[in-house]
Amino acid sequence: MAGFKKSSRNRSVVTHKDLVHIGPGTLAGRYLRQFWHPIAVAADLSAGIAKPARLLGEDLTLYRGEGGTVHAVAFRCAHRGTLLAAGWVEDDCIRCMYHGWKYDAEGQCVEQPAEDPPFAKKIRIRSYPTREYLGLIFVYLGEGQVAPFPRYPHYEDQGVLEVLPVQNWPCNYLQVLENFPDIVHVAFVHRNSYLLQDERTGIPTFLTDESEWGYTTQAFFPGGMYHCFQFGMPNITDFRLPSIDDEIPYQDRLHWSIAIDDENSAIFRLRLSRITAEAAARYREKHGAAPAARIGPTVAELGEKIIAGRATLKDLGRLTDDTVVISNAQDYVAQIGQGRITDRGREHLGRSDLGVILLRKIFEREVRAFAERREQKKWFRPESLSVKLENRNQAAS
Amino acid sequence: MAGFKKSSRNRSVVTHKDLVHIGPGTLAGRYLRQFWHPIAVAADLSAGIAKPARLLGEDLTLYRGEGGTVHAVAFRCAHRGTLLAAGWVEDDCIRCMYHGWKYDAEGQCVEQPAEDPPFAKKIRIRSYPTREYLGLIFVYLGEGQVAPFPRYPHYEDQGVLEVLPVQNWPCNYLQVLENFPDIVHVAFVHRNSYLLQDERTGIPTFLTDESEWGYTTQAFFPGGMYHCFQFGMPNITDFRLPSIDDEIPYQDRLHWSIAIDDENSAIFRLRLSRITAEAAARYREKHGAAPAARIGPTVAELGEKIIAGRATLKDLGRLTDDTVVISNAQDYVAQIGQGRITDRGREHLGRSDLGVILLRKIFEREVRAFAERREQKKWFRPESLSVKLENRNQAAS
Amino acid sequence: MAGFKKSSRNRSVVTHKDLVHIGPGTLAGRYLRQFWHPIAVAADLSAGIAKPARLLGEDLTLYRGEGGTVHAVAFRCAHRGTLLAAGWVEDDCIRCMYHGWKYDAEGQCVEQPAEDPPFAKKIRIRSYPTREYLGLIFVYLGEGQVAPFPRYPHYEDQGVLEVLPVQNWPCNYLQVLENFPDIVHVAFVHRNSYLLQDERTGIPTFLTDESEWGYTTQAFFPGGMYHCFQFGMPNITDFRLPSIDDEIPYQDRLHWSIAIDDENSAIFRLRLSRITAEAAARYREKHGAAPAARIGPTVAELGEKIIAGRATLKDLGRLTDDTVVISNAQDYVAQIGQGRITDRGREHLGRSDLGVILLRKIFEREVRAFAERREQKKWFRPESLSVKLENRNQAAS
Repeated sequence: MAGFKKSSRNRSVVTHKDLVHIGPGTLAGRYLRQFWHPIAVAADLSAGIAKPARLLGEDLTLYRGEGGTVHAVAFRCAHRGTLLAAGWVEDDCIRCMYHGWKYDAEGQCVEQPAEDPPFAKKIRIRSYPTREYLGLIFVYLGEGQVAPFPRYPHYEDQGVLEVLPVQNWPCNYLQVLENFPDIVHVAFVHRNSYLLQDERTGIPTFLTDESEWGYTTQAFFPGGMYHCFQFGMPNITDFRLPSIDDEIPYQDRLHWSIAIDDENSAIFRLRLSRITAEAAARYREKHGAAPAARIGPTVAELGEKIIAGRATLKDLGRLTDDTVVISNAQDYVAQIGQGRITDRGREHLGRSDLGVILLRKIFEREVRAFAERREQKKWFRPESLSVKLENRNQAAS
Repeated sequence: MAGFKKSSRNRSVVTHKDLVHIGPGTLAGRYLRQFWHPIAVAADLSAGIAKPARLLGEDLTLYRGEGGTVHAVAFRCAHRGTLLAAGWVEDDCIRCMYHGWKYDAEGQCVEQPAEDPPFAKKIRIRSYPTREYLGLIFVYLGEGQVAPFPRYPHYEDQGVLEVLPVQNWPCNYLQVLENFPDIVHVAFVHRNSYLLQDERTGIPTFLTDESEWGYTTQAFFPGGMYHCFQFGMPNITDFRLPSIDDEIPYQDRLHWSIAIDDENSAIFRLRLSRITAEAAARYREKHGAAPAARIGPTVAELGEKIIAGRATLKDLGRLTDDTVVISNAQDYVAQIGQGRITDRGREHLGRSDLGVILLRKIFEREVRAFAERREQKKWFRPESLSVKLENRNQAAS
Repeated sequence: MAGFKKSSRNRSVVTHKDLVHIGPGTLAGRYLRQFWHPIAVAADLSAGIAKPARLLGEDLTLYRGEGGTVHAVAFRCAHRGTLLAAGWVEDDCIRCMYHGWKYDAEGQCVEQPAEDPPFAKKIRIRSYPTREYLGLIFVYLGEGQVAPFPRYPHYEDQGVLEVLPVQNWPCNYLQVLENFPDIVHVAFVHRNSYLLQDERTGIPTFLTDESEWGYTTQAFFPGGMYHCFQFGMPNITDFRLPSIDDEIPYQDRLHWSIAIDDENSAIFRLRLSRITAEAAARYREKHGAAPAARIGPTVAELGEKIIAGRATLKDLGRLTDDTVVISNAQDYVAQIGQGRITDRGREHLGRSDLGVILLRKIFEREVRAFAERREQKKWFRPESLSVKLENRNQAAS
């Protein structure tokens, strides 16, 4: 078992460095492979199309059979190693573009056009369980028994469910995860942001407690806003934001922050407007079925410009009129500005970091249990864990 | 002697890993330095001009004297190390741009404008034998006695000899070489390609046998086409393709696939139309003295797009109308899609790979003989080795 | 003490390799930190603005307080490691954009909005002494007592002092420094250059002698020009050039060649026209307060094109009509063409390299004294060290 130290009493000591590296065979990588992760937006993969995909430092081939079912198999053909994603989808199989070896959805080689038949039977590549759910494609990279697939009934309900564009963050996944429980950052990172155009101004106080699912953060803003959001292990955030639409008081968000590899992360994001069918039709007409691709600088372009010193945060409003891009670029500077993999050995944490500290404590404890083959906590989401966004000076939402 | 293992009986064991690395001092690099290699297209180097060039991981300075003779010397000036290719050509000498040290074609320093004369006599940089032949510039990088320069009389004959644009392949040279004896790939890689608009459809059967020059491959296509091509050690391919011109039944191709360094290769390509002087004039008028530079995406742009999953092979016909670019992009995906240096330890070879297996066997045997200072095979091309492209359902060509 | 070898008699032997690496903790890096270095152009940093900066392989945060004073502190916030340069300047303090920690100009944390007050007192980041002088911002990176700030009264005098655009050289600082005492290079590198449109043609003879400040070079050009320039340790050049203006016989230049990191250097450049107030007004009207940004290829674009063999030095006049860019591109090819860090072990130095040899000798001697904690030479500039540019065939300037 590689990637962690043993103390003098022969118990493993898992440190934040063990959490950073998530490639195949690493300790945190093997721990995270016990969970289902989103890997693509369902609408981005048409029937009969294959694409390369990367998750937890592992390349794989994602394809949608001609009948519409999504499959995931190893990245390379077992024959000469060419990427299978360049191949042809046939029914629920994928055929390598180099010599036509054909694999079924279980990774079994079922045809080798220029070989004698018995050979194919001996060839099997890795295949990965997949699920399509809430407009996303999920995959399970773990060895052994496949974990039950978790569902989020609230997001299956009536209303408009939008899959927002995937965000890419060129830094370690922990930096992205640590931004969520860190409620104080809102007051500074987003101080010139639409996110603070309501009662969420000023420095909030907050409580963060471990939950059956992960942790719960309750934030109390001086302006009267109360914010309660839920984190689900290992990378899910469920929270409520002010709505982009006048007719709707708020919108719910379900996010997964995945590690593409040690230095690249992505966030898959759902936005739910719980409205009646009639209101949904109006909403769709106003906002489009999916948020339109923006013209103008991207979040990464703006963020990198500021990190390089060629612009300042104050310039953001002049560089784009997209308020969401501004808010994301602010987060980009905060997180990528820590370095691709930040040096946590130099930090000085305080009272306001209790959420970050709890997140790390949970991860370290669980990865240690995993390393020592002891029982891990069984994470699940009970009904009682709710998300809230309420102005306590006014009526509750 | 570095770069290979010795077995228990003190005999060297050369593996494919020893073949991959070809820089100065490596085993395969020293083996390959016993051969002449093309390094530039003659027409790309005007009289009085110097250029940097790279072959087998070695940088050098290529220049054409004012009288037209091509020379090759070391990459850097012996004085302060600036690249000589930025210098001035004077007669058959090259003068460094930094302090004017002047070297003759043998690399002897013949002038140091700001030094006392005896110093220059002590300075000599490496020079390399060069030859200009069939529109290409060849160079010999080996130590010791220079190998005889091989000629290809067939390509010196009457007709139109065209030097096609050099192809660049950002992968190891072995991946490029292994694509040639791999005749089955044509049926899959090029299945949507002009190359298959004739009787070369379906999965061919083939024979590959070692020859006095390298190996001979004979391919039998189900549609009736018979294809016989010759490989010459260590990197030459001689074959016949359907013609691009209505008046000519076929055209002959002589290719050299060189290793620029471990992760970059190039193919120098000649196309011969054996036609009378009168037909040659018509051909030149129709097709131009040299194939025109194309407008549109390059082979590498298209190939990288597919490898990254931003396009599929099916999109090629929509992305360009250049059929040759399409066919090259297909090969690009197959070869670069294996990775810059493919992991041969994970392959599963079969009956259809007999050509690839023979190629590797020859290389391993010869490099082993070289490593053990035993006699290597004396490669030469006898008259009997011919290339053929015949439709056996119709008349022979 | 790292980074140098000890001889058998336990005395350190400093070689050129010890001079190349200048990051924090390296021998040459610690030696160079005993000097003040320019790090930015004063006009590029407005009041209330922060920017990242890099010197000697060390990142830092440069900012100008709202009252106009320049400060330099550590690159990262002590809290969670985000770059401070993205933060907000408040008076003479800088506030981190992530959680609002505020530091004063001494690096003392003076506010942590979401923490209890005693915590801030314990947090202090590195701060660096800075000076604004002659239109440049200087910084002192050394430990311990701060060296006296050197002044250059000649450049404080009446006249027009212009800060020229900073030049970036993607190579080791020693290659940039060695170009100065190397007077012979002018005759070759710049042989097609405006620099030689006067009596500075032909191969000069020269004398280089150590001075109280560094070294003095006197060059005698065959055409009659006499050139005397001064080098000040460790990276200052003071010299006189033909003027760009008809009314002025010559202009003086004060340059600092700094090491950004091991593979990147920059030159900060001042140009002084010693003219009366009336002539200064005319000059400013003709030439602008600061040299205008040029349209056309940059020095680096031209230089890289030549190094890659896609153009030759002869093409420069066709690629741009900016004579200064041509002259700089010539130097770019000579210096970057040696490689990012040149291999001095392969050099062959001669009589014409006496200046380069003296420069290295001084550096090696002083760094050795530093390494052995012996007394270093106290560099200073006496009145007697003058710069000259005279045509000895005509009247002296």
